Amino acid sequence: MAKAAKNAISPTRQENYPEWYQQVIKAADLAENSPVRGCMVIKPWGWAIWENMQRVLDRMFKETGHENAYFPLFIPLSFLQKEADHVEGFAKECAVVTHHRLEPGPDGLLRPAPSSLLEEPLIVRPTSETIIGSLYAQWVQSYRDLPILINQWANVVRWEMRTRLFLRTTEFLWQEGHTAHATAEEAQAETDKMLGVYATFAEEYMAMPVIRGEKTAGERFPGAVSTFAIEAMMQDRKALQAGTSHFLGQNFSKAQQIKFQDQNGTEQFAWTTSWGVSTRLVGGLIMTHSDDDGLILPPRLAPKHIVMLPIYRSAEERGPVLEYVNSLKRELEDQKYDGEPVRVIIDDRDLRGGEKNWHHVKRGVPLRAEVGPRDIADNAVFLSRRDTGEKQKMSRADLVQTIDTLLADIQTGLFERALKMREAHTQEINTLDDFRAYFTPQNAKDPEIHGGFALCHWHDDPAVDELLKELKVTIRCIPLDAPQEAGKCVITGKPSARRVLFAKAY
Amino acid sequence: MAKAAKNAISPTRQENYPEWYQQVIKAADLAENSPVRGCMVIKPWGWAIWENMQRVLDRMFKETGHENAYFPLFIPLSFLQKEADHVEGFAKECAVVTHHRLEPGPDGLLRPAPSSLLEEPLIVRPTSETIIGSLYAQWVQSYRDLPILINQWANVVRWEMRTRLFLRTTEFLWQEGHTAHATAEEAQAETDKMLGVYATFAEEYMAMPVIRGEKTAGERFPGAVSTFAIEAMMQDRKALQAGTSHFLGQNFSKAQQIKFQDQNGTEQFAWTTSWGVSTRLVGGLIMTHSDDDGLILPPRLAPKHIVMLPIYRSAEERGPVLEYVNSLKRELEDQKYDGEPVRVIIDDRDLRGGEKNWHHVKRGVPLRAEVGPRDIADNAVFLSRRDTGEKQKMSRADLVQTIDTLLADIQTGLFERALKMREAHTQEINTLDDFRAYFTPQNAKDPEIHGGFALCHWHDDPAVDELLKELKVTIRCIPLDAPQEAGKCVITGKPSARRVLFAKAY
Repeated sequence: MAKAAKNAISPTRQENYPEWYQQVIKAADLAENSPVRGCMVIKPWGWAIWENMQRVLDRMFKETGHENAYFPLFIPLSFLQKEADHVEGFAKECAVVTHHRLEPGPDGLLRPAPSSLLEEPLIVRPTSETIIGSLYAQWVQSYRDLPILINQWANVVRWEMRTRLFLRTTEFLWQEGHTAHATAEEAQAETDKMLGVYATFAEEYMAMPVIRGEKTAGERFPGAVSTFAIEAMMQDRKALQAGTSHFLGQNFSKAQQIKFQDQNGTEQFAWTTSWGVSTRLVGGLIMTHSDDDGLILPPRLAPKHIVMLPIYRSAEERGPVLEYVNSLKRELEDQKYDGEPVRVIIDDRDLRGGEKNWHHVKRGVPLRAEVGPRDIADNAVFLSRRDTGEKQKMSRADLVQTIDTLLADIQTGLFERALKMREAHTQEINTLDDFRAYFTPQNAKDPEIHGGFALCHWHDDPAVDELLKELKVTIRCIPLDAPQEAGKCVITGKPSARRVLFAKAY
Repeated sequence: MAKAAKNAISPTRQENYPEWYQQVIKAADLAENSPVRGCMVIKPWGWAIWENMQRVLDRMFKETGHENAYFPLFIPLSFLQKEADHVEGFAKECAVVTHHRLEPGPDGLLRPAPSSLLEEPLIVRPTSETIIGSLYAQWVQSYRDLPILINQWANVVRWEMRTRLFLRTTEFLWQEGHTAHATAEEAQAETDKMLGVYATFAEEYMAMPVIRGEKTAGERFPGAVSTFAIEAMMQDRKALQAGTSHFLGQNFSKAQQIKFQDQNGTEQFAWTTSWGVSTRLVGGLIMTHSDDDGLILPPRLAPKHIVMLPIYRSAEERGPVLEYVNSLKRELEDQKYDGEPVRVIIDDRDLRGGEKNWHHVKRGVPLRAEVGPRDIADNAVFLSRRDTGEKQKMSRADLVQTIDTLLADIQTGLFERALKMREAHTQEINTLDDFRAYFTPQNAKDPEIHGGFALCHWHDDPAVDELLKELKVTIRCIPLDAPQEAGKCVITGKPSARRVLFAKAY
């Protein structure tokens, strides 16, 4: 696209990335802050993206043998307390329900009725291992009752002090899978399988390349034996943890008494896992693809694939133009992309053409087709691609016949562009000086601009944690595909067996 | 079906209807009480029914021009207080969040950290008019911003003292539509339209006949100008309110300041509506159709349409039988019912045939096909219908060719059976003696068995309310199709213009 001198989003990514992110969300009308501290409102266009994510993930979970169920929003305080690490991890950010009735106080205003004080406070679930575990303990008697493979779609609350739309909010929406197995091997295989599902979803649907890896001890889920994650690079070169899969060993089954009789009649504790992705994925999607003109959506998750923009100057022109776009819409909807009918909208609002066009640019619709009397005369449309900005007159027949490959091409192109970006900003770093330089902002104006991902040798040591804290860098993961390679920790010089991934992160 | 001497569910409906209801849920493994007071766990089979309900309703909402969005779980106390009737209606059953952190108390056990006391308590939403209204107030400036037609799928909490699975639980799942319009007429039309959507869903999908009507003042939603509902008769002749649609007038727009400039530049308050159905519908579905052998599901909402039960006595027989059922499954899945592929499962668990068969009877699968070596020899199956108990040998080709009409027949049959039941237990009643007799339990053993629905003349008067309270009867609604008919109130003898619907209710 011959870029307009002025971009639709101000500031640009270069000028102020965090602010650009907020403005993209605003311009695309995806979400906004609510009057309730830290809680967001997901608006229809943002919700439609999440709905598409849910639909695909739900299908993938079912294809891998899982069923959905629903568990209570509230967790009795004593349940949370049963797993020591777990409660330690969540106690500082809990919404606590203490009363169940309101009544007028001395000033006439409502207040929690003192007589309705709960004997035991209830916690609004920050995650559901403990409450679900207590139920599995009742459901499981024998090895025949295993495995239990259940997922739930739910809202959770973690009281956050600094929030950012989609990325970190007090209430967020997610799915949490909770499984119980007879053996450690099965539970480990489940953990791996779901990490794989997440990676496939991120790469093939979100067009967001990810690195699969294991978290180091300090970054584990509270109560887990091991935590695996997918990590993606955003356009500011920071990492976003986009999904986690936890091998919980017998920690929660011991805390919750999930026991079964094995084939020999011996009582055993079950092995459990949990795994989740959240509305944070929408934030990742935005930051991976969008540009200084707003949102860019990968077609497989776009609520609409193509918008038709009728152009006419008079009432006489209007009739034929609308007839044309309506019949073209039906023809396109008869085509399939990704196994589903192509999703088409017509925008015939009474707005100036430029304004309308930018509206859909900012909302990230993959294709825009302008149709005026001259296009009709040529039996064509004037087509614009959101990803590349490419514009061309295209015959109606070509559009109908090639829309699926066009959309597939956009999907692939977005993935490749993101992958290239990540590769350009990923380095092996071997000295402390280089490491410091890599993560030190290049100028005060762009405090967040730094090298990107660093693959370095590492030896677990308090000295490492100290320096990382200073540089605001974290170990994202031990990549699963990292080869065994003898080396020395980039920070301490102590021996290391393989490189791990360092990055600044959301 | 030649009924077995013993039924699968004990007690029977006749013996103890409320307990029968609990046992049907247990036998079908739909849900159970959780360790959290009043909150239920929806198990996979129950969830799959709700998921089907959601899918159909969501489609109907979208077809009527609505979009989904998501609003915060929490409502600041001051918001709730803005509409006087509204807060009055919900203050007594609120879960109140007062703290946002836990810390160890003097006894070492966790407690809400006193220093984390919220300045303003948050209410877990019992319904979202106030929080959504406050956002609409920001979104609406001009008549061009109207109408707003939004729905959300969410969990809500109303602290209930006496709970019953699906019918009344402290946390429940629902959808709540919230719309804002420029004129009273439009808002009233929306209220009517959504009542119509609910009625269509109830009758055509749940196969549950409903009466549409307006609620009397005493039964209105707190803060509404008028409330409309669909009411269904359960098999114990009690009424279940299955969905409500509220015309809120300008009450909430005044409380929340939802104002807009009309076409003349004059500031106006918007006119709003809200409407909802909940997981209570699953309870209604159970009580409308199920029998003394357990759940009966209308095919349009059944998670599975047909279960294949392979029967074999030896390893040699097993191979061919499984091959046959697998190929038949594929063939059936290529057929469509209600616009979607037929949903088939094979149950090849290592259980006795009788046990397996009853398992699916109790879970309400519409069709069961037993397949043994002799059926294969005849290229047939032994088919049982859950609704009528009818059993017959059917050729494989017939089954494949007729499964859609078979399922459609079951769907229609269930609706007709329920309608006949309701008609048999609905009467016009004209004297107070008859009214008393109709609603007085016929014997002490069946305190709930009474006449059913009564259509009677009614004049709003405190004396009426008193008698109704004594008899535990409520006015369900003023049916929309009730003809104008001069008469005298069945209780007070005062003048009345048309009959209203009286019933005992859930």
